[in-house]
Amino acid sequence: MRFCPYAHRAVLVAIAKNVPHDVVNVNLKTKPEWLFQLNPLGKVPTLQLNSKEVLYESLILADYLDEAYPGRQLQASDPKQKAFDRLLVENFGKVQVHFYKLVYAGANEEEVKAHIEGIRVSLAPFEKELEKRGTTYFGGNDAPGMPDYMIWPWIERLPVVKLYHPALSDYESAKKENPRLENWRQVMKEDPAVKAFYLTPEQHKRFIDTHVGGGVPDYDCLDE
Amino acid sequence: MRFCPYAHRAVLVAIAKNVPHDVVNVNLKTKPEWLFQLNPLGKVPTLQLNSKEVLYESLILADYLDEAYPGRQLQASDPKQKAFDRLLVENFGKVQVHFYKLVYAGANEEEVKAHIEGIRVSLAPFEKELEKRGTTYFGGNDAPGMPDYMIWPWIERLPVVKLYHPALSDYESAKKENPRLENWRQVMKEDPAVKAFYLTPEQHKRFIDTHVGGGVPDYDCLDE
Repeated sequence: MRFCPYAHRAVLVAIAKNVPHDVVNVNLKTKPEWLFQLNPLGKVPTLQLNSKEVLYESLILADYLDEAYPGRQLQASDPKQKAFDRLLVENFGKVQVHFYKLVYAGANEEEVKAHIEGIRVSLAPFEKELEKRGTTYFGGNDAPGMPDYMIWPWIERLPVVKLYHPALSDYESAKKENPRLENWRQVMKEDPAVKAFYLTPEQHKRFIDTHVGGGVPDYDCLDE
Repeated sequence: MRFCPYAHRAVLVAIAKNVPHDVVNVNLKTKPEWLFQLNPLGKVPTLQLNSKEVLYESLILADYLDEAYPGRQLQASDPKQKAFDRLLVENFGKVQVHFYKLVYAGANEEEVKAHIEGIRVSLAPFEKELEKRGTTYFGGNDAPGMPDYMIWPWIERLPVVKLYHPALSDYESAKKENPRLENWRQVMKEDPAVKAFYLTPEQHKRFIDTHVGGGVPDYDCLDE
């Protein structure tokens, strides 16, 4: 599913690691039977390794791709750093929750404001974390690491909030409040893996628009 | 919290790896202020590494202990096997959900039956997995590995169902239906780490009894 942030995670790692792969998009409203044969949960991302073996769960298959394939290592080598990185990704869940509620819940103005504030509060520790680490990326200075790719899909989608709620979302202040995070966002946009799968806020919004009020998602809305 | 299955995971790994540690139990209904200072979520298990560093989330800290300390390696070395093991633990979530609903929801007879059936259905893939692996433990033939320890806390608690619903829970048939799982359960009970922290079904029930109907959990109910 081209717009799924979890599938996005898997694709970012596959591209960053130069893992040869084919992406097969599925319609999540009318899931094909073959998807359930591969993965009983019928969820994306589902990674078919060969004719017999299948993996799913974005974080698990991302780590697998990183460990099983040569090239740039995305996870930290130090066990403690790796654990802190996993925790960072776990704690990013709050941003995800507020983002979904904000965009999909058809919330009233008070609720919209509360979720925008929720995103602000949940992002603050990430600014602090970049300051503490003193690095450009969460994964170091040279290139994005695993935590960068695991949280990116939602960061790429966050500007959608501004498109839906221009009067309520003070995006410019948010950028000023989080200078390191804003710099990180800019350099991430130039990363080859991020670039290869990047969609603009307008493109993300176009997809959300197809079903935000309860309509049928148009998974092919990018096709002209 | 002595009865928390997530904290149980952390302790099992610490014991299995011979990691020197102190267990400090906390009252989850009146959480001490120092817990929030260590972990903003105030959850257990929280692992204090030193005066500055803290980890939480049972699966993350279990992997950390495994990787940071010498001795028997609990995670599979092969990335693919490790990913399958993590997925196995993830899929065990269904057993956990049915167990909690069954014990805590004050369910009526129909609901109790449905959750007992839910546990039966959710456990079946684990019997199949042991058959497929052809090993005594999920982690091999010699000793429990990471997936064994990560699912054990709920397996230890499952017989509580029989104590609450003797007429509805056909535990003897379940054992016959899952001979490999039953053998695994028996050998797990002899594992030194499991043994060191083991509580009987009656002891688990004694704790649940203190709050199952909405009462205040007696976290010290094991103290005589």
